[in-house]
Amino acid sequence: MAGETVITVIGNLVDDPELRYTPSGAAVAKFRIASTPRAFDRETNAWKDGEALFLTCSVWRQYAENVAESLSRGTRVIVQGRLKQRSYETREGEKRTVYELDVEEVGPALRFSTAKLNKSGSGSGGGGGRSFGGGGNSSGGGSAPDDPWASAAPAGAPAGNAGFDEDPPF
Amino acid sequence: MAGETVITVIGNLVDDPELRYTPSGAAVAKFRIASTPRAFDRETNAWKDGEALFLTCSVWRQYAENVAESLSRGTRVIVQGRLKQRSYETREGEKRTVYELDVEEVGPALRFSTAKLNKSGSGSGGGGGRSFGGGGNSSGGGSAPDDPWASAAPAGAPAGNAGFDEDPPF
Amino acid sequence: MAGETVITVIGNLVDDPELRYTPSGAAVAKFRIASTPRAFDRETNAWKDGEALFLTCSVWRQYAENVAESLSRGTRVIVQGRLKQRSYETREGEKRTVYELDVEEVGPALRFSTAKLNKSGSGSGGGGGRSFGGGGNSSGGGSAPDDPWASAAPAGAPAGNAGFDEDPPF
Amino acid sequence: MAGETVITVIGNLVDDPELRYTPSGAAVAKFRIASTPRAFDRETNAWKDGEALFLTCSVWRQYAENVAESLSRGTRVIVQGRLKQRSYETREGEKRTVYELDVEEVGPALRFSTAKLNKSGSGSGGGGGRSFGGGGNSSGGGSAPDDPWASAAPAGAPAGNAGFDEDPPF
Repeated sequence: MAGETVITVIGNLVDDPELRYTPSGAAVAKFRIASTPRAFDRETNAWKDGEALFLTCSVWRQYAENVAESLSRGTRVIVQGRLKQRSYETREGEKRTVYELDVEEVGPALRFSTAKLNKSGSGSGGGGGRSFGGGGNSSGGGSAPDDPWASAAPAGAPAGNAGFDEDPPF
Repeated sequence: MAGETVITVIGNLVDDPELRYTPSGAAVAKFRIASTPRAFDRETNAWKDGEALFLTCSVWRQYAENVAESLSRGTRVIVQGRLKQRSYETREGEKRTVYELDVEEVGPALRFSTAKLNKSGSGSGGGGGRSFGGGGNSSGGGSAPDDPWASAAPAGAPAGNAGFDEDPPF
Repeated sequence: MAGETVITVIGNLVDDPELRYTPSGAAVAKFRIASTPRAFDRETNAWKDGEALFLTCSVWRQYAENVAESLSRGTRVIVQGRLKQRSYETREGEKRTVYELDVEEVGPALRFSTAKLNKSGSGSGGGGGRSFGGGGNSSGGGSAPDDPWASAAPAGAPAGNAGFDEDPPF
Repeated sequence: MAGETVITVIGNLVDDPELRYTPSGAAVAKFRIASTPRAFDRETNAWKDGEALFLTCSVWRQYAENVAESLSRGTRVIVQGRLKQRSYETREGEKRTVYELDVEEVGPALRFSTAKLNKSGSGSGGGGGRSFGGGGNSSGGGSAPDDPWASAAPAGAPAGNAGFDEDPPF
């Protein structure tokens, strides 16, 4: 893709990220952030919050699992992604448009916190490193998510970095 | 203002800019742009348009007049501005949210065209230069807009670069 | 290319753009911009210029010719491009590093001026429109630049939008 | 400050961050990142690294301590900051220019790792939260850094978010 509108937003998570899986087993996490500008009020001599900008962000695969495991409601984050517009129809047949962020990179901002980092997928011995597939994550059961890469993906399933357009399961 | 979400968008004007004036005489121009990403399709060996992102942009004062005079439907532009969210209620009492761009800078992209530039407000001999007030623009009449700065602005009227929050007359 | 550092800079041209041609006939324009931040000084109650950021920008082919024809020393511009680092050795054998901007889009900012636009390459009847090749420009002579696309380019010569890495003739 | 060139860079730390203190006791961390673009080579059918962009970044106060505690050589980060140019003279009297990033926000990118977050300054019971001063950090001694905010800062010392121009102790 060329000519996409890539933006960076600093904001706080409004809720915990929601992690789901597509029928083909790919993880996708959605989270909503609020970015609140501040203006200095010379009369009160204090900072005053401006109107917040809310954006829904989605992130895929191993990155989604990392996000779901690391971030939670209130976390201050830096998000870089492609600003997208999605149109849909309500039950009443009205057209609506929403703006969303297709996340390229996201992480906690360290302004008010420290972070202890762990290679993802390395829990059960997997290699991790600079690949998308990650290793391990061969979770035993319970509420732990199945590794979306463990089973053979159906033809046409997402398998690369680009051009992933399966509809999110939300 | 600090902590605003400043983004840059490359797109084409969907229509001619619309120029209006606030009751206090300040010019404001609105224009809508479509930003269309492209993907290279390896099967057809050709570029294919992706889904467009539409954004409404607003720009104020002399800048608004320059935009209205220079840009028109189809013009490819570069826009830098603050991404804002505005909520309103429909006549039926439903809440809606729109995203808009508060323009900081805008101009035609020179990919497919050349531009001949003129200092704004210098037409009738005014100084122009690096100020907002500009000079001249003492338009004779007809459909030419009155200079919003020619007459004394009422108290509380916008007069600087920052903190301009009079409602746009749209 | 993925993972490039794309930035947007607002600045003023320090000099007129310099237009040259590669041996294979491709146009390339270089221009240098200064971006000067301003701070409001509460003591003097006036804006004060901060230290300027200087960046050398390069742009190719028809876009280069449009830039050379449209922009000049002092023009305020919006530039979006990929921030690149280039290392070289001085005659004395010292290593130096410069940062440059590989322009993706550039145009005049309309804050202080209006622009009259013309489709590029349409002067002598050529098609112009949304293509790089442009039409016309079959200039007769004098100091007018030859159309770099008029003659057959040697094998391996740049011919597309991407992956243009012939060394600039500067 | 208005009109600054704010950019976002994704890269990896080349070394561990270096944490120092100004004479007035303010913490400042410097770290260097390499941002490496990748191109898909259709001949080898594999991704190939492009030339890296290196940038030195600096961050102040509690944020600096958080960075020094959280990030290390190799960490993939997202950095947003103001691109600055600094000129200096070598011992031989030659003028040199370096580009640096004044960090506004920085954090680890979660592409290949998970993060466990802790409010900064909350270790020894301090409140932390949305303030710069943080709490705790009342280090006993040894090589532990003194809290630059614990003792009264000398006149002219940095005390706010903006306009911090004490020279870094590097």
